[in-house]
Amino acid sequence: MAISNRVNQRTVLLLISLIQSGGRDKPISLSDLAEFTGIPKPTLVRWFKEAENGGYVIRAVKGKRHHFIVSAKGLALLNGVCELISSGEKPIERIAGEVFTGLGEGAYYMSLEGYRREFLKHLGYEPFKGTLNLRIISKSAIYSVIKWIEKVRPVIVPGFTESGRTFGSVRIYPVRLNGELCHAIFPERRHYNADVIEVISKDNLRRKLNLKDGDIVTVDLLSWD
Amino acid sequence: MAISNRVNQRTVLLLISLIQSGGRDKPISLSDLAEFTGIPKPTLVRWFKEAENGGYVIRAVKGKRHHFIVSAKGLALLNGVCELISSGEKPIERIAGEVFTGLGEGAYYMSLEGYRREFLKHLGYEPFKGTLNLRIISKSAIYSVIKWIEKVRPVIVPGFTESGRTFGSVRIYPVRLNGELCHAIFPERRHYNADVIEVISKDNLRRKLNLKDGDIVTVDLLSWD
Repeated sequence: MAISNRVNQRTVLLLISLIQSGGRDKPISLSDLAEFTGIPKPTLVRWFKEAENGGYVIRAVKGKRHHFIVSAKGLALLNGVCELISSGEKPIERIAGEVFTGLGEGAYYMSLEGYRREFLKHLGYEPFKGTLNLRIISKSAIYSVIKWIEKVRPVIVPGFTESGRTFGSVRIYPVRLNGELCHAIFPERRHYNADVIEVISKDNLRRKLNLKDGDIVTVDLLSWD
Repeated sequence: MAISNRVNQRTVLLLISLIQSGGRDKPISLSDLAEFTGIPKPTLVRWFKEAENGGYVIRAVKGKRHHFIVSAKGLALLNGVCELISSGEKPIERIAGEVFTGLGEGAYYMSLEGYRREFLKHLGYEPFKGTLNLRIISKSAIYSVIKWIEKVRPVIVPGFTESGRTFGSVRIYPVRLNGELCHAIFPERRHYNADVIEVISKDNLRRKLNLKDGDIVTVDLLSWD
């Protein structure tokens, strides 16, 4: 996902600066851009040289003033960045979470036939036999989760009885973990406090997303489509 | 059009840097961002402080490492910038032109009833009685114009006879001047060389776009969608 080329990275920043300064459709002079953005002129001069060499800006010299125009190729480059930005649906809220190892109860429940059948029915997949536990680090993020749960209607997997034991219902909400769509589960009978989110997926998320205890992840709190 | 607030401008640059470094959906550490972008750490620290105060990034501290996540509000800010970038159709090519005062022939022809009637019929407006003349500054831009004229099929306003005098046909192409949609005309009998574009519009473009001789303008070479 990262744009590997540093020159292109700087060019994108330069083009965005031009556009923010009103230069989408109008030439901007170096002095005006320096004034608008607060970026030092020598920095801009270097950036413009790179961008011009790449064909991303057009320079028009008039007396001592240098005017710059975002080229068609420059607009195309920015449109590529925008596709990256707007890919995927917009999250209701984003929070940070820290990966930690739970007591293994998630793995136990996810291996029960009663839950597996119900998850397949409601979510379309049999979950990996284990949950990924996330600790929410900040108070404001915990508040975001509480608001999210109030706002979004969950999918409810009903409880059941197996071998004379009853198992409670589970509320399910969609989340995205470091960009990966998966589901947060909130069992009726819950052992964790409000600062923990348990996540399930058809995949082993730790392996798929290369996560280990203590890693910080981005959690997008979503709604059902 | 310009985003007036410099803090927001810097925040946009920071968020774009994060996204280019792969941080759309994943937390990025300050060190990684500095390495990816080549932006000095102290600069990033200042930018992050501003962005965090505005709620555009989420900071998660883990030991000595600071991780940053683009917040939902940050994504919304970027989507606003992207709307600005992708507004209007994409030009085939962009060039720079310099405004100059012609010999007044354009004004003469544009005042002829024969042409006025035909322009109204073909373009849907009676043109302002004058043309805006643009000198194309670079050789590569002249080449772009020649390729554009070869590629795009013109609207042709036929010639006519008035008071025993014959007037030639005119080829018309759509252009955008500093973001303003208008038309370039290429009369069959032309007094200018390939380095000049004559532009017409229903408005007085000099007044509307606040242009004077010597001003540099952005010319988008368009096609008839």
